[in-house]
Amino acid sequence: MTVSPNHADQLEKLRDLVKDIEYCMLTTVNPDGSLHSRPMALNHEIEENGDLWFFTYASSYKVDEVNHNHHVNVSFAAPNKQTYVALSGQAELVRDKQMMEQLWVPDLKAWFPNGIDEPDIALLKVSVEKAEYWDSPSGIVAKTIGF
Amino acid sequence: MTVSPNHADQLEKLRDLVKDIEYCMLTTVNPDGSLHSRPMALNHEIEENGDLWFFTYASSYKVDEVNHNHHVNVSFAAPNKQTYVALSGQAELVRDKQMMEQLWVPDLKAWFPNGIDEPDIALLKVSVEKAEYWDSPSGIVAKTIGF
Ligand SMILES: Cc1cc2nc3c(=O)[nH]c(=O)nc-3n(C[C@H](O)[C@H](O)[C@H](O)COP(=O)(O)O)c2cc1C
Repeated sequence: MTVSPNHADQLEKLRDLVKDIEYCMLTTVNPDGSLHSRPMALNHEIEENGDLWFFTYASSYKVDEVNHNHHVNVSFAAPNKQTYVALSGQAELVRDKQMMEQLWVPDLKAWFPNGIDEPDIALLKVSVEKAEYWDSPSGIVAKTIGF
Repeated sequence: MTVSPNHADQLEKLRDLVKDIEYCMLTTVNPDGSLHSRPMALNHEIEENGDLWFFTYASSYKVDEVNHNHHVNVSFAAPNKQTYVALSGQAELVRDKQMMEQLWVPDLKAWFPNGIDEPDIALLKVSVEKAEYWDSPSGIVAKTIGF
């Protein structure tokens, strides 16, 4: 994506909103059409190009779903702060050891006790296409950021 | 759905988990395949049969999406309590004045200032088919409830 100055401000706003929300819900499409979500640790910021990275087991169910249908949604909710962020994009599995080394944080040990030496560990890269956020309680209209 | 005794316990657990989470994220499928989510007020408990009810504007974008593809996901996140709930189901628009009277709570005025006299107001009923929850920080495996 190309970043216009206005766009850069909006992205900054988005990164700021999710900064303190450690976990998000990642929604994927099952081959039967049903939608599944699960909490995921966002160990790192939203990249400047709007990408998100998650650690995953390559053999996990969500990876099957993503391979079958790339569309995903990532939502951040902090009800106590009245902050909601919804990201729409496409996901792909990336097995890049160097990238994993860069992105690894010790907190991830809770889900990956073997760290990046785990043979089945991989990254799920989400390329965000559209972002919406609500930062006031009565926000019936979302603010939209296109990518 | 038929409720076995064990099932009733699980449903009770689910209702208990979401009781204090006022807002959830409702994810729908866009006709172009992308997934969209937005915060929604769960004004009422999960019904004993697993149904959820939301108030919506009938002319809103989410209703278009639901009419095109019934599959939805409803996720509840309380990061401060390490509670996450994901419900998978199908949604349909219901225009039932009596039901609206039953379900209306004054807090909804924030999004529906005209209350149930609003000509465009309607209900979105979600029939839950599968529920998963995580209630411990390192809960890598979800507990699943089928409906
Ligand atoms: C905390 C919160 C709760 C909301 N609850 C509702 C709701 O119960 N019903 C509703 O239609 N919109 C609600 N909204 C607004 C929606 O998030 C959304 O912006 C609006 O319904 C339009 O969505 P759509 O264009 O995808 O249909 C709420 C917004 C916030 C921030």
